[in-house]
Amino acid sequence: MSENAQAIAVQNLLAGIAQAGQDEMFTPILERRGLRIERIVSHGHATPADQPYQQAEDEWVMVVEGAARLWLDGTEEVELARGDHLMIPAGVRHRVTWTTPSGPTVWLAVHFAP
Amino acid sequence: MSENAQAIAVQNLLAGIAQAGQDEMFTPILERRGLRIERIVSHGHATPADQPYQQAEDEWVMVVEGAARLWLDGTEEVELARGDHLMIPAGVRHRVTWTTPSGPTVWLAVHFAP
Repeated sequence: MSENAQAIAVQNLLAGIAQAGQDEMFTPILERRGLRIERIVSHGHATPADQPYQQAEDEWVMVVEGAARLWLDGTEEVELARGDHLMIPAGVRHRVTWTTPSGPTVWLAVHFAP
Repeated sequence: MSENAQAIAVQNLLAGIAQAGQDEMFTPILERRGLRIERIVSHGHATPADQPYQQAEDEWVMVVEGAARLWLDGTEEVELARGDHLMIPAGVRHRVTWTTPSGPTVWLAVHFAP
């Protein structure tokens, strides 16, 4: 029992999330060589128009709860609802242009070496 | 627009899922060196008691929809609800002992080199 005890450390992605009015919240879930799983909680937050993200790593992202709009350089904005997921290739500038103000938007992000 | 067009290929993890009475469904989402993201849809399925899983790779798993019970070698069973996630270390035998019969249980699994 003891040697595997850490294996049953169950956490919940929807627990302990930021309330409206707080900053956007970034919580590391798992970090390994070449891989990082992260939870992001937004409450009506958007990325400033002049500060798009641009990352050296590929990122796979899913909306687990809530709703959002995402802009990627060279594309139309996309609307994202619960369960929607997509790849954001390394180097592509992108911004969250909207998240629903009516509750938390919970993202699961997997960052990995390209 | 054209060069990043693939970047906005949005899919939904809760779409196109197996109906009750069908086999458990395994859908690859993303595969890269040392990383594999997969969706699993169960409908009351359980792993046969004499055929536990035992994998060479670490696996991080989350219940996105539904409810399940999971057994890992050397531990008590754990109950999993929506949003619950845990690490299943490489080499640890494990089984899904129950998934709710009242609807689909949708898992997100991330397999990665230990």
